[in-house]
Amino acid sequence: MEGMSDLERLVALEDIKLLKARRDRAVDTKDWDLYLSLHAPDHVSDNDGFDRWESAEVMIANVRKSLGPDKISVHHSHSPEITFESPTKAKGIWGMEDNIHWEEDGTRLWLQGYGFYHETYEKRDGTWLFTSRRLRRTYVRTSVEPDAIGD
Amino acid sequence: MEGMSDLERLVALEDIKLLKARRDRAVDTKDWDLYLSLHAPDHVSDNDGFDRWESAEVMIANVRKSLGPDKISVHHSHSPEITFESPTKAKGIWGMEDNIHWEEDGTRLWLQGYGFYHETYEKRDGTWLFTSRRLRRTYVRTSVEPDAIGD
Amino acid sequence: MEGMSDLERLVALEDIKLLKARRDRAVDTKDWDLYLSLHAPDHVSDNDGFDRWESAEVMIANVRKSLGPDKISVHHSHSPEITFESPTKAKGIWGMEDNIHWEEDGTRLWLQGYGFYHETYEKRDGTWLFTSRRLRRTYVRTSVEPDAIGD
Repeated sequence: MEGMSDLERLVALEDIKLLKARRDRAVDTKDWDLYLSLHAPDHVSDNDGFDRWESAEVMIANVRKSLGPDKISVHHSHSPEITFESPTKAKGIWGMEDNIHWEEDGTRLWLQGYGFYHETYEKRDGTWLFTSRRLRRTYVRTSVEPDAIGD
Repeated sequence: MEGMSDLERLVALEDIKLLKARRDRAVDTKDWDLYLSLHAPDHVSDNDGFDRWESAEVMIANVRKSLGPDKISVHHSHSPEITFESPTKAKGIWGMEDNIHWEEDGTRLWLQGYGFYHETYEKRDGTWLFTSRRLRRTYVRTSVEPDAIGD
Repeated sequence: MEGMSDLERLVALEDIKLLKARRDRAVDTKDWDLYLSLHAPDHVSDNDGFDRWESAEVMIANVRKSLGPDKISVHHSHSPEITFESPTKAKGIWGMEDNIHWEEDGTRLWLQGYGFYHETYEKRDGTWLFTSRRLRRTYVRTSVEPDAIGD
């Protein structure tokens, strides 16, 4: 990237990987203050074409609601491909897996999904933030599918 | 590594991690042109001692055939150990998990495996490429095993 | 971190990631000599509040015993958050998943868990070592739970 030395690019890469790590931990420990602090206020989410949330506040309200206090979630992100458009703008693709576990009326329920996150990041006031996230799933399966028996 | 500065080594490490990320995404999105572009023409594959493919073309023909148009695959690679033999030659070990899902006659089938990739890389004409991949599985289970019931 | 240049920090980060990668591979390939070499002799482990082991020797004796020669284990670590307290002291949080598979009397048994590792590292005599590991699980399920049928 013109305008960034190799060292500047490597530092920014680690910053963005750390941002992602904190996001995955924030959602899975339900640390919503941390979660909010990692996203630009005007963050746009596209959740596999089903949901579109045009601010960080709206996204977090929906994520909190869908997970509730009792669902246990696991988000693991893999093998980033990060490219810089400028020293303060970047794009990233990550492999992902999520597993969600909960109970209803004593029955154990779950969701397991795979796919790719397509994200953008901006460095604002010296800090990298998420500015958009688009999830495209390749596979999802839940305990309520007709063919899901026993597990 | 003699002959590489710390900065040169870190840049090469990120290049190889990016190569790996693009490979995992290429196979799971069935982007075979991208997949081919990441491998040296003389790439050698050893698939857990069962298959040995002595060119990138032969490997990709076999991978395409085994996945077909309808199987959904997920390849996640973990925790690389990358060492440099020279500024243009490196070796890597990665933890791996793959999950493959498909249907036959309306029955949902799957394979889940774990193990380690042992790989080599070369920088040719300024670009890092895979030159060999050896998969050694520690565990594999499929839906067609006699003891696999329900799932 | 005061006292470390960006380049020194990036080199130390890669050293710690490599340390972690070698640990995950050592346990899953039962390479106990390698496993021991990665930990400070005075390493302290806290295994989700159930076990506390106050030396590397004691920890490894217990890990070897719990895995035995026949259990197949998979430890995958994700998305590190590493911070430096000094050029020779660091802390890290990693997402984790482990899967353990074994048989008893011809019955296939397993454990699957998720959570976070909270670790500390020290550079002693030029080499980064683990000095402590605290596992906090968010979810664990085993084949011997009453509700686990079929799988």
